[in-house]
Amino acid sequence: MSGKYKVIFQPSGRRGEIEEDKTLLEAAQMLGVDLESICGGKGTCGKCKVRIEEGYFEKDAMESGMSHLTPMSDVERKFIKAGDGPQMRLACSATVQGDVKVFVPEKSRAGKQIVRKAARDIIIALDPAVKRYYIELQAPGLHDLSRGDFERIGNALREQYGLDDIDIDYVILRDIQNILRKGEWKVTVSVWMDREIIKVEPGFVESSYGIAIDVGTTTVAAYLCDMNTGKVLNTESMMNPQVPYGEDVMSRITYAMTNDSGLETMRKTLIEGLNELIAKVTSEIRLNGTKGGHTIIDMTVVFNTAMHHIFLGFNPEYIGRSPFIPALQEPIDIKARDMGIDINPASYIHVLPIEAGFVGADNVGVLIAEEPYNADDMVLIIDIGTNGELLLGNKDAVYSTSCATGPAFEGAQIKFGMRAAPGAIEKVRIDPGTKDPEYMVIGKADWHTHIEKIDAKGLCGSGIIDVITEMFKAGIIDKSGKFVMDLDTPRVRRDAEGKPEYVLAWSDETSIGTDITVTQGDVRALQLAKGALYAGAKLMMKKLGIEKLDRVVLAGAFGSHIDTEAAMTLGMFPDCNIEKVYAVGNAAGDGARMALLNRGKRIEAREKARWVNFVEIAVEPEFEKEFMMAMHIPHMKDRFPNLKALLEKNNVPVKVKG
Amino acid sequence: MSGKYKVIFQPSGRRGEIEEDKTLLEAAQMLGVDLESICGGKGTCGKCKVRIEEGYFEKDAMESGMSHLTPMSDVERKFIKAGDGPQMRLACSATVQGDVKVFVPEKSRAGKQIVRKAARDIIIALDPAVKRYYIELQAPGLHDLSRGDFERIGNALREQYGLDDIDIDYVILRDIQNILRKGEWKVTVSVWMDREIIKVEPGFVESSYGIAIDVGTTTVAAYLCDMNTGKVLNTESMMNPQVPYGEDVMSRITYAMTNDSGLETMRKTLIEGLNELIAKVTSEIRLNGTKGGHTIIDMTVVFNTAMHHIFLGFNPEYIGRSPFIPALQEPIDIKARDMGIDINPASYIHVLPIEAGFVGADNVGVLIAEEPYNADDMVLIIDIGTNGELLLGNKDAVYSTSCATGPAFEGAQIKFGMRAAPGAIEKVRIDPGTKDPEYMVIGKADWHTHIEKIDAKGLCGSGIIDVITEMFKAGIIDKSGKFVMDLDTPRVRRDAEGKPEYVLAWSDETSIGTDITVTQGDVRALQLAKGALYAGAKLMMKKLGIEKLDRVVLAGAFGSHIDTEAAMTLGMFPDCNIEKVYAVGNAAGDGARMALLNRGKRIEAREKARWVNFVEIAVEPEFEKEFMMAMHIPHMKDRFPNLKALLEKNNVPVKVKG
Repeated sequence: MSGKYKVIFQPSGRRGEIEEDKTLLEAAQMLGVDLESICGGKGTCGKCKVRIEEGYFEKDAMESGMSHLTPMSDVERKFIKAGDGPQMRLACSATVQGDVKVFVPEKSRAGKQIVRKAARDIIIALDPAVKRYYIELQAPGLHDLSRGDFERIGNALREQYGLDDIDIDYVILRDIQNILRKGEWKVTVSVWMDREIIKVEPGFVESSYGIAIDVGTTTVAAYLCDMNTGKVLNTESMMNPQVPYGEDVMSRITYAMTNDSGLETMRKTLIEGLNELIAKVTSEIRLNGTKGGHTIIDMTVVFNTAMHHIFLGFNPEYIGRSPFIPALQEPIDIKARDMGIDINPASYIHVLPIEAGFVGADNVGVLIAEEPYNADDMVLIIDIGTNGELLLGNKDAVYSTSCATGPAFEGAQIKFGMRAAPGAIEKVRIDPGTKDPEYMVIGKADWHTHIEKIDAKGLCGSGIIDVITEMFKAGIIDKSGKFVMDLDTPRVRRDAEGKPEYVLAWSDETSIGTDITVTQGDVRALQLAKGALYAGAKLMMKKLGIEKLDRVVLAGAFGSHIDTEAAMTLGMFPDCNIEKVYAVGNAAGDGARMALLNRGKRIEAREKARWVNFVEIAVEPEFEKEFMMAMHIPHMKDRFPNLKALLEKNNVPVKVKG
Repeated sequence: MSGKYKVIFQPSGRRGEIEEDKTLLEAAQMLGVDLESICGGKGTCGKCKVRIEEGYFEKDAMESGMSHLTPMSDVERKFIKAGDGPQMRLACSATVQGDVKVFVPEKSRAGKQIVRKAARDIIIALDPAVKRYYIELQAPGLHDLSRGDFERIGNALREQYGLDDIDIDYVILRDIQNILRKGEWKVTVSVWMDREIIKVEPGFVESSYGIAIDVGTTTVAAYLCDMNTGKVLNTESMMNPQVPYGEDVMSRITYAMTNDSGLETMRKTLIEGLNELIAKVTSEIRLNGTKGGHTIIDMTVVFNTAMHHIFLGFNPEYIGRSPFIPALQEPIDIKARDMGIDINPASYIHVLPIEAGFVGADNVGVLIAEEPYNADDMVLIIDIGTNGELLLGNKDAVYSTSCATGPAFEGAQIKFGMRAAPGAIEKVRIDPGTKDPEYMVIGKADWHTHIEKIDAKGLCGSGIIDVITEMFKAGIIDKSGKFVMDLDTPRVRRDAEGKPEYVLAWSDETSIGTDITVTQGDVRALQLAKGALYAGAKLMMKKLGIEKLDRVVLAGAFGSHIDTEAAMTLGMFPDCNIEKVYAVGNAAGDGARMALLNRGKRIEAREKARWVNFVEIAVEPEFEKEFMMAMHIPHMKDRFPNLKALLEKNNVPVKVKG
């Protein structure tokens, strides 16, 4: 017998009737409850712990032995510890069998992520794909017997602007009669790629707007651009609305493969989210009787290969497994109305090309923004989003690869890991003498307005890199990542299972009522992540036959927030002059903007995406050995002359090979 | 106070609740009642006479003086005669004010028109716009790392067929992953204009279907073609579903202009009708898991300018009034899904170009089917549909024009005129001695199956031409069209108002219980119609500087049913060797088929539509004089040497100038 049961979530108070056999995680997603789920419900992250306040046992449980939830699973037994307190369950495992009241502890709340994808100034020649032409026609008389309205526009474009054989979108064509007459035969015509009319407006219209979008696995950023000046007029960002279906790429591919119409569900969710974002970023715009998204005449978009596939409605299954074949590599222009995107319906959405199975259009965005193919010096570009992608080379050759860094940089697989949301520790310094830390916590309120100091709740990516690097520099862990146990500090201790950990914050400094610690497992997770990046860079250097890097560019929002010294000390990349290591912010978004403002950049993207040598790092025979050596901090064998000098200058007691 | 009233139509018994102030004609259209309305409710044709059986007066009319209908209008007083019987009203004028029961006399019923738009054999080189390519790909391996599914198809088309830089429709692209795998890397790809993939099917698919459609004002014909052989596999036709909004072009333009969303209503009605027609003509087709319309990969369509505009959603207002500016003259290719046409959604519908304000794509169809631009001899092509269009010329120059023939050829403005439906007299011979006629009536049942003889009800177009020509040959009317009154026959008489008429059928031979007569007004209406055609041809001959025609081609379904001798005797066109006067049937539809089967014909259509010299006959200074002279039978002054010889050979007593 199947029914519906009342489920209440606290402290939000959200409630609803939930069908039997839905998991509590699904219930939380349906009811819009803020509940962390990094693995997307696969039972691998253990982040969705909830406390069952009513219904853990039936009222007469002593007699019936029945619960209002399915029995504890093995997965739950693995993650739920005695220290978590009574009546805890994993929301992704426990399914509804009766009425329940659920409490979401602060630690299990995802929080509103602080999105920092601001746009930097880019200087680029304006040559957009959509250009506007103002034309004045004579009102038709009997001498015009053999010329239709459309042909008259065509003639004017030919005579006044030298544009030949221009087509017109059918939905626009349907309106030209009225627009020509409304504008008294003076109109502004928007032409895409010197080829097709995609908008006709009455009178002279000067303003022109475009939008560039970067769909990250976690964050989506939209840049509203003035197409006459190239300036960014407004920026908005949001969480990728697909996050409830899985926080990383593989979770979403799995969701698409294992759920009926899972792909379509995620695609629609993304399109709806993009439409909300577009409405928000254009909310101030009024143009010639049109407002909001419909004023937008051109749009570019970048994303990784999985987001690319889901956005376009392709099955992502085949890019998720060998031989990693995408449905489409080339750039494509799709009518906004065919995609369901709420901009001018006749406009095209330009989807940048992807490079290979796991190197997406976002990396092509980085490529055309940073232009390593024009560089004389040898540059390594690391784009750390939810995935890690590397570009290495100069004008002679550029290699690219994708690194399975895992989600450690984003806080998953880290005991107290969390996203860069209020309460996250983002910077750490440890006194090498006392081993006591200082740390900074991300405050409440928008990052650009007043910030309210709050207590710590966990560690975000930059905090994780910082704390582990500082632990290394303070001698709390050695170069192999192992804890040094004979230190004179209560902060280094063993947990209930006897495993070492470092107490970063005592419980009275936190908002979660327990100590925030860094465990041996956390250190290992970060070693795996940074080791993958380093090994990738190293193998590409070998392919290029080079021994040192001239420059390291950290791209991506995450790259902007990590300490460059900490990153190099940890060994996220090979040794380099620290003056030549710098962050560029969201370079993928910059590339999308460049392609929006300059059609030459679209051609460049297409050509360079093909020209770049993609290397599948994981199949290289040397990978395993390189990876193993790169797990060490900063590396097992490689020399770091620049780092050595830097550490010595700063009186850091640990030694590295110079 | 506004309400709804019960309206019943007899003899069909159709009934419904109709809002106050709707006309009875609107009520009939809403209820699907078969009621003739040639002018579309404008009060100019007088064909929608109905008898009010209940509600003509209120029950207590003696006291209240109130009717359940609005009072008799001036328009009604003009058309309703004493002889029509009691309680007659014009359905387009009388509006509902209470419950009414209405009887539709047989004379006012439109009847199911017999549509005769069969396809003739045309011989044309096959070079369709959509071509199919079978490709076999290797299943991808790790060596294919940098090639997506789409790029693999693109490479195969390039390597195996020399097709470069092929695009793909987005909706098709979304499916290729599954199709490639379903077909085990063997697929059949349909490519439009060597440019864009519009279909991908698993495995080897040989069959290929296309459809050509001729949207006439009255009749719509669809030709299903085998794109591999060019053969017509099936033909279907239907009444244009817009007929209820007006039987002629001007009525429909008026409907679009004077009704809120009238244009959209007619457009949707047409699209729905076309989809039904497409479903019907393809109902036998099964292809690779697809059936019906979705098997169709290409479609062409022709129509007059008004139908062209309504189909495409253009306001037809501006082609209905000076300076007659169409929205679009050029050919256009529109995605089937954008039009809402149920064929393969990614396919394009090719709309042939129009020539000018009133010379449509249908005439361009005639042009490319008959190819006067390749002729050595001087040919006149007359396409009589609901409008009359003329083409005249040879390889050196071709002129075109549109003639306001009025609807006389279709039976409107003719007292007993009707469409070519069962009961229509279609052929007439009159004995010059006795002045008695012989006639043929269109039988019941489909024209190609068993025909049941029935009594006459009226005259269709070919019958009208026949009877008036025969009346002239028998001396019943003179060359000016005036009745000769001193003949020894009861068939020539004066009506109640003293006007002369000829009794073609006595009441006991008819199904309508009255004599079927040809009136002086009928003769005048036909003289106006044929005079317009003749004057048009004459003025074009003057422009070309020629004195005689080498050949006359009668195009259109109507042209196939008129007697060529009668047409020349009447003076529908200048003198010509009768051996060189012939009908070609639906040449517009032939042209649409040719454009479907051969893309060169599309280019030819575009070029020749521009090359043809369109003449607006009505604005020529000489038109009025020529028109007046052409009203005579066969003409006031022109010589008819061929006709003279023919009449003499047949011992016809009347004389024409030789």
